[in-house]
Amino acid sequence: MGQLFLGIDGGGSKCKARLVDAAGSLLGEGVAGPANAFQNQDLARHSIVESARRALEAAQLPDTRLGQVVAGAGLAGVNVPRIACEMEAWQHPFARLYIDTDIHIACLAAHGGQGGAVIVAGTGSVGYSLLGGVGTSCGAHGFPFGDKGSGAWLGLQAMQAVLLALDGLGPATSLLGQLEAQLDARGLGIIDAMAGAAPRDYGALAPLVLDCAQRGDAVALGIVEDGATYLSDMAHKLLDDGGAALCMLGGLGEKLTPWMRPEVLERVVPALGQPDEGAVQFAMQRYREEG
Amino acid sequence: MGQLFLGIDGGGSKCKARLVDAAGSLLGEGVAGPANAFQNQDLARHSIVESARRALEAAQLPDTRLGQVVAGAGLAGVNVPRIACEMEAWQHPFARLYIDTDIHIACLAAHGGQGGAVIVAGTGSVGYSLLGGVGTSCGAHGFPFGDKGSGAWLGLQAMQAVLLALDGLGPATSLLGQLEAQLDARGLGIIDAMAGAAPRDYGALAPLVLDCAQRGDAVALGIVEDGATYLSDMAHKLLDDGGAALCMLGGLGEKLTPWMRPEVLERVVPALGQPDEGAVQFAMQRYREEG
Repeated sequence: MGQLFLGIDGGGSKCKARLVDAAGSLLGEGVAGPANAFQNQDLARHSIVESARRALEAAQLPDTRLGQVVAGAGLAGVNVPRIACEMEAWQHPFARLYIDTDIHIACLAAHGGQGGAVIVAGTGSVGYSLLGGVGTSCGAHGFPFGDKGSGAWLGLQAMQAVLLALDGLGPATSLLGQLEAQLDARGLGIIDAMAGAAPRDYGALAPLVLDCAQRGDAVALGIVEDGATYLSDMAHKLLDDGGAALCMLGGLGEKLTPWMRPEVLERVVPALGQPDEGAVQFAMQRYREEG
Repeated sequence: MGQLFLGIDGGGSKCKARLVDAAGSLLGEGVAGPANAFQNQDLARHSIVESARRALEAAQLPDTRLGQVVAGAGLAGVNVPRIACEMEAWQHPFARLYIDTDIHIACLAAHGGQGGAVIVAGTGSVGYSLLGGVGTSCGAHGFPFGDKGSGAWLGLQAMQAVLLALDGLGPATSLLGQLEAQLDARGLGIIDAMAGAAPRDYGALAPLVLDCAQRGDAVALGIVEDGATYLSDMAHKLLDDGGAALCMLGGLGEKLTPWMRPEVLERVVPALGQPDEGAVQFAMQRYREEG
């Protein structure tokens, strides 16, 4: 079987581990809880080990093999330097553990280890390019001031537009009826329904915005086009070398793609692999480099 | 001395009471803690009674006179019907207690009991008109989806614009240096400084936006003009009768006025009285009506 490699895709909702042999053949997979190292580092460490144990179990290998595994992890939250340092100092149970950001690993996976760019649009939004070995990130920054073009941003714009319409200070929009239905509220009652709402609550409104835009609602269309134009600007910045390809990832990536600018659209390609596969490539590459 | 009247101006940070005699002459004033009935009704009731006691004390009148006082209160939070009903049911210590919203009382005060409109722009924003005895409110709705043109809104727009500029996805702006200085942070460090920030924290950035706009910064100017245009639209809606006057109140009201549309500017007049004076007028008017 030779050297075992483990790819870990650690995000805010779950942690996925992929165990392969030296030839890259899948031996087993395991899933555990959240692994956002910024939100909860102890939990992230626990989830990483737990997902690895489950992958070993699925491969019918004993727990004791953990210490022989070379692991590569793409983790949410390690873009923050302090968190990255603390995770690097972790006395982990693996033979080796290489760590980078979730978006770096997603980009490696999407372009099969070749250079390229990714834009992830889900509850939040972020862009990343890996060109000539240099990673550059763009956007994100968090709700409510960042993450333009994301689900949370689309939902917040929808709330703003509907409240203007209700006061007669903005154009009427079919978003009102859609938000009322989804929030089980009438008129200004949507305010109570969204009071203190988290980004994911705003993100849950994003499909309504896309739906209304597709049906030709001018207000929804304006919101979607504004968000997609921002993502086009981001793509331009990430791809300014002139040649690389772009993958649109996340729950909204594909859905927003049709509204992006034509010259950006031409560069969009499907992702070659998933982040846990990218994490395996990352582990193998770093292991080879270290010799 | 005859019948005593008490005017109460109850807001989210303090409660002010104004005690007058039957001729309207000031006898004493008292200030106590917060009196936002939506945020904390028990505290609001306590602050109302405490401010009244202090006004009696300042007038060198005994506490026992509380039961002979006819009080009128403008309270934040009683725009919510449930809160209004609960406050009406209060077994208060006054001879009579008439309650209305803080904005209704502010409008009465600003126009000396005559019809007119007010727009209050502080941390939040709200408009109100009292025409032919009918009160109409407009705007507000809360952060982050409402309160356009308010201090919190100006601050949020500034953060968004600065983050776009930092990513090279929006025009450069002198707001960046101003925010860095005020938040004691550099570049993307402003994100940490504003993570989880409350509306008042965003509102604290508003003076910087006005300052940059006055110095001709195009980004800040665009933000201020957008906010002021919204307030102009609101004024149009409130004043659609064609004749009434408008008072711009709150910490930002006067500062935003120069950016409002000329035909709205023509209608702006200074406030005749303060809310606690309006609350006295309100108490006297309601007492006369009840006979």
